[in-house]
Amino acid sequence: TFSDFLENRGGFHLAGASVEGTMMLEELPVDRPLCLLFGNEHRGLSEDAKKICDFLFSIPLYGMVESYNLSVSAAITLYDYLKRKRLALKQDGDFSEEEYLAEKAHYYVRSLGAETAQALLSKAQEFI
Amino acid sequence: TFSDFLENRGGFHLAGASVEGTMMLEELPVDRPLCLLFGNEHRGLSEDAKKICDFLFSIPLYGMVESYNLSVSAAITLYDYLKRKRLALKQDGDFSEEEYLAEKAHYYVRSLGAETAQALLSKAQEFI
Repeated sequence: TFSDFLENRGGFHLAGASVEGTMMLEELPVDRPLCLLFGNEHRGLSEDAKKICDFLFSIPLYGMVESYNLSVSAAITLYDYLKRKRLALKQDGDFSEEEYLAEKAHYYVRSLGAETAQALLSKAQEFI
Repeated sequence: TFSDFLENRGGFHLAGASVEGTMMLEELPVDRPLCLLFGNEHRGLSEDAKKICDFLFSIPLYGMVESYNLSVSAAITLYDYLKRKRLALKQDGDFSEEEYLAEKAHYYVRSLGAETAQALLSKAQEFI
């Protein structure tokens, strides 16, 4: 569960998107692993969620814009944060080739479901 | 129509988002007025649309991402482009207060429809 994740999160810091943020998106630190939290589109993050966050950050709004929907909030946040992170790392990501392969395999298995993945894998052996 | 707009577009340059872009989003020039074009989510911009563009730009993709949907493409493009534009202008926008007011009024009238807007305006006079 999410609570288990929080209790065992090791080096992860929690960064929550909130209009009450005390830092701007552009100030989110890129020197440590972050888990980004986004709240419900109408009510934002719950009080409990905000309390456990290590950082609360705001996405800048200009002109007639009063808020962003969840997809746009996540898009802007990941674009800005990962761009700065890549600059800091001086490479495109922090996975080794091994880890990248494992993530990709895990992603495919979750997408397909274990049963379909197993069937496909068995069948694929015939073509290798 | 859109063709009329194109013929009379004066100082506007057309910048189209395309995977065939010859420049990256981060290179879009902020020193002139741009009209940003985004294509259909499945087929992208038509050949005709690409032909009339002054610039074709790509949004960078990293990791396992193969494409962005329209909303995310527009969000990332506007976030990056307007951020650099504000920096270049050294202010939040290039509207005068007068122009900003006019845009806002125009926006409300379009949102409400002329008839509802007229009725509301007449009624509002009573409270001023």
